[in-house]
Amino acid sequence: MMKRIFHILFCMIVSLSLKAQTTINVADYGIVPDKDIVLEVNQLLHSLKKKKDVVLSFPKGTYQFYPENAFETYWAVSNHDNSLKKMAFPLFDMDGITIDGNGSEFVFHGRICPIVVFESQSVTLKNFSIDWSIPFQSELSVVENDEANNSFVATIGTNHKYRVKDGKVYFRHYDWEDPIGQNTPFDPKTNAPIWDSRPYAFNIKNAVAKDLGKDKIEFRKATKKVPPVGTVIVNHGPQGTNRLVQAIHLKNSKNTRIENVTIYAAGGMGLIAERCENIHLDGYKITSKAGRTTSTRADASHFLGCKGLIRMENCLLEHMLDDGINVHGAYVKVDKYVGGKQFLCEISHHQQWGLTFAEIGDKVTITSRETVLPIFETEVSDFRVLNEKKFLITVKEVPAEMPEGLLSLENSTWNPDLVMRNNTIRDNRARSVLVTIKGKVLIENNYFSSQMHGVLIEGDNNKWYESGGVRNVVIQNNIFENIGYGDSTGYPLYVAPLLRPEQRLGDEKYHWNINFLNNVIKSFNGHLVRAISVKGLDIKNNTIELSRTYPTGLQRTALAFEYCEAVTIEKNEFKGFDWPITIDKKDSAVNFTVKKNKGISK
Amino acid sequence: MMKRIFHILFCMIVSLSLKAQTTINVADYGIVPDKDIVLEVNQLLHSLKKKKDVVLSFPKGTYQFYPENAFETYWAVSNHDNSLKKMAFPLFDMDGITIDGNGSEFVFHGRICPIVVFESQSVTLKNFSIDWSIPFQSELSVVENDEANNSFVATIGTNHKYRVKDGKVYFRHYDWEDPIGQNTPFDPKTNAPIWDSRPYAFNIKNAVAKDLGKDKIEFRKATKKVPPVGTVIVNHGPQGTNRLVQAIHLKNSKNTRIENVTIYAAGGMGLIAERCENIHLDGYKITSKAGRTTSTRADASHFLGCKGLIRMENCLLEHMLDDGINVHGAYVKVDKYVGGKQFLCEISHHQQWGLTFAEIGDKVTITSRETVLPIFETEVSDFRVLNEKKFLITVKEVPAEMPEGLLSLENSTWNPDLVMRNNTIRDNRARSVLVTIKGKVLIENNYFSSQMHGVLIEGDNNKWYESGGVRNVVIQNNIFENIGYGDSTGYPLYVAPLLRPEQRLGDEKYHWNINFLNNVIKSFNGHLVRAISVKGLDIKNNTIELSRTYPTGLQRTALAFEYCEAVTIEKNEFKGFDWPITIDKKDSAVNFTVKKNKGISK
Repeated sequence: MMKRIFHILFCMIVSLSLKAQTTINVADYGIVPDKDIVLEVNQLLHSLKKKKDVVLSFPKGTYQFYPENAFETYWAVSNHDNSLKKMAFPLFDMDGITIDGNGSEFVFHGRICPIVVFESQSVTLKNFSIDWSIPFQSELSVVENDEANNSFVATIGTNHKYRVKDGKVYFRHYDWEDPIGQNTPFDPKTNAPIWDSRPYAFNIKNAVAKDLGKDKIEFRKATKKVPPVGTVIVNHGPQGTNRLVQAIHLKNSKNTRIENVTIYAAGGMGLIAERCENIHLDGYKITSKAGRTTSTRADASHFLGCKGLIRMENCLLEHMLDDGINVHGAYVKVDKYVGGKQFLCEISHHQQWGLTFAEIGDKVTITSRETVLPIFETEVSDFRVLNEKKFLITVKEVPAEMPEGLLSLENSTWNPDLVMRNNTIRDNRARSVLVTIKGKVLIENNYFSSQMHGVLIEGDNNKWYESGGVRNVVIQNNIFENIGYGDSTGYPLYVAPLLRPEQRLGDEKYHWNINFLNNVIKSFNGHLVRAISVKGLDIKNNTIELSRTYPTGLQRTALAFEYCEAVTIEKNEFKGFDWPITIDKKDSAVNFTVKKNKGISK
Repeated sequence: MMKRIFHILFCMIVSLSLKAQTTINVADYGIVPDKDIVLEVNQLLHSLKKKKDVVLSFPKGTYQFYPENAFETYWAVSNHDNSLKKMAFPLFDMDGITIDGNGSEFVFHGRICPIVVFESQSVTLKNFSIDWSIPFQSELSVVENDEANNSFVATIGTNHKYRVKDGKVYFRHYDWEDPIGQNTPFDPKTNAPIWDSRPYAFNIKNAVAKDLGKDKIEFRKATKKVPPVGTVIVNHGPQGTNRLVQAIHLKNSKNTRIENVTIYAAGGMGLIAERCENIHLDGYKITSKAGRTTSTRADASHFLGCKGLIRMENCLLEHMLDDGINVHGAYVKVDKYVGGKQFLCEISHHQQWGLTFAEIGDKVTITSRETVLPIFETEVSDFRVLNEKKFLITVKEVPAEMPEGLLSLENSTWNPDLVMRNNTIRDNRARSVLVTIKGKVLIENNYFSSQMHGVLIEGDNNKWYESGGVRNVVIQNNIFENIGYGDSTGYPLYVAPLLRPEQRLGDEKYHWNINFLNNVIKSFNGHLVRAISVKGLDIKNNTIELSRTYPTGLQRTALAFEYCEAVTIEKNEFKGFDWPITIDKKDSAVNFTVKKNKGISK
């Protein structure tokens, strides 16, 4: 009995000490709504260095953050444009800090990054929204069009001042101007990219703008086909400066939790995480604000070289100009073998420059740049950065004979598990989900409706350099609705390494063990799965219903397989399609079981 | 006797231990001529971390340095363009390292900074030259001109590839192109800027270029007056990118020695030193290489916020596109008094952003931004950088009542002494010497012949923000030849704070105690000294001889004084001038002694 009481007491003490948080009302530090509070937040954070388990509680209100007095440092952010960056909440070297907005709005002005978590653990961000006074993309709403003259008139849908000079329009931002750069036509009725958007791509070079006054601009020769009246042409701004300002950046950190945080805008991604262990998103939301059609300029969430568990639950990700979630590693190029077990390597993609590819103790795999397949695994014994692009890596062992051909390295330690549950990803340019990690992946009970593929399992060592082959993926009980309305080539599940002509499929399959089960697909074209270089692919119990929301479009094969083995297609049902639903199995695809399906032509 | 022997032995041991240097023949580390050795040098330097007193000895040869594998970091350099910079010799955190080139040539390719000394002590650089495969400025040699058509034809005097597009010419560099930017016309016969260069300023906007082939370009509407045949128009490139690559940068270091080092080119200054203690230049040389007219794109040497002694001896500085030497501090703006003895400050000049203005323990002076005069001195108790531009500084004491009006801070601890002896500074755009420091200044036995002033003692808190008033300057036994041939407004000695209309001279004089003695001036216009706001100015025993090398030009007053006190003009002799040599003394100049001079009109 005594033993038990002691045990209970002990547990209480442990639990109390674990929860012994200090709560600070930020108002006590001059942090109040409706004035620039960047300096006050910076001073408060500075005073908390080396303190543990602190909650910064913001009384509900609208708080303003300006760049002038913000902390700044040169900052590399994967998949963004590296630069000297201003930061409103530089959460560097923190342990157990919580930012609790209590439902507040955090409003940013200009190029200031809201939140950067670096070399910290147990950071929680909750109960606030992030927005900008002037959103990063300008939106042009087509009010008239003239097919004969290839011209249209648009009004400025967002609150941007602008000027027209020498036939080009420039949109005024906080302290810079953006011409028209990358762009996507959206349909304000669906808040999603319009059906078959390609003919409406804005031709920056040819387009001639004329200011008609009163926020109206006439454009001539801007598009191949004049956009329908009502179309909103969303201007992402020019490449090179349109990914300078992510909303939340997690780097080299552990146990981060993001809960009930809404992001309305960002000059980059909503969330980008690199080399982080355990990230839990619950009620993380990306959406557009009233009066705007789109939300973030890039992905809603993106994870590179993480480990532990990435958990995404109860999230709504919509109206982005890029993917919903992307979880992957990086292939880096071996420049040369220096000798002494040391390699000179080069980070392959310019938007990965500055990445911490590895550290001492990590396992890395030498891979072939021709087949994208692994060759030899070893451990890092030394790692030294030379510059943003190049590093020297020393390993414990090298192959007795160095493999011929071009080589790359992949970090095999930093591969997380992924659980996605009860999320909605929709009405965005690009894909719902991209995933290429070796950890366990479980994607269930989600709703996906994106412009390109639903779930894309790709991996490539030639374009984005996103490693690597998956080993264990379960995708079940999800709804895929109207996937691929961008150009009707999309599939709910598309699995294939992306190879260049000089690359080739190797002896082994690239992806392993993918299960696509019990999903409901509402589809205008009947596409289900396309797969190349997969070993172990179960497609079972899925229901595919015809949807009439969009035209049928290109109508490719419902199921297509190339260089796959051990594939089971069982108990799937296609309903309502008035054209033949077919399986296209190339000779290179072997060991197939196809049974008990309904609605598939023999 | 025994005591004396012990003393001798002790001294020998001390002297041996002081001199116990390890000499490394770099060839043993794969560092050999005629291949890119950046990685090998980097590896060797890395292996020397925490080693003391090492000599890296380069066997005489021509060594090549490329940027691809170079160490890189974001780097603020005063008076330059901050950026992510590649470095060939990142001498960070070193103690007692010597780079001995034994007469070698170090040849750099592209944007790579040769030498950066940071947080190091007792670094010696000697016996090598620095050059670039492609110099930073392109030189256009005028071979034909046509006044009637306002056109001229030029050949490319430097080894730049180029292209002409839409009437503009672009010069190919290592991995970038430069259009025509800032520019200066040089006379290849004197290797100096041409007489009265203003009408030949290249109008970038109006100029229309036409490629005539064979390295010949025709320019129309490029200059107000067509440049004489033979003129070399030197293109510095555009502001913002034409000061990215200084040759030698010393930062936060102590006891640096530069001996017998020659610099033929730089995409910025030859030497820039910030917050360094004791710098000794002996046989430091800036000059142009055969086939080129100019040397560095900016100053030969520049010192900001240093202390201890700056010694410059036996140096030859010529053909630069900016000043010979400039030694000064910085005025930084007080943004606001935060309270609690803390100020929010802003670095005033954008090319000083990133400067370490002060550290704990430094003395700083609060100064008036209206009169540029000191108000209150105190000590720094805390210093925290917010961003490149802004910092928070806490001081031990503040005035009982905060002074009214706009305030600045000046660092009063970091003010060096300066000794310049036996140097030649000539044939450069701009001045020979600028100096505004509170330490002792001795400038003797030098030869100066520059396009603008000879010695400029200025100080300003509105343009370059270069502090501060001098306290003790001796300029003696120098030769000043043809000073000010740029526009004939130059003086051998020009002393005056630079004030804006909204600023005013205060109650105190700005500069104190300047002695200009026994100098020989060979002058085409008879200019000697112009001074404003000086207390204590002795001009004695100088000889001013007429020189006929250039036209007389504007012919201003030989001696001019405003708001000065305690001025002695004695035993100076003007020889050979066939126009009246006069003294212009405003009523605000008091306590004057003028005696025993020859050749001055009464």
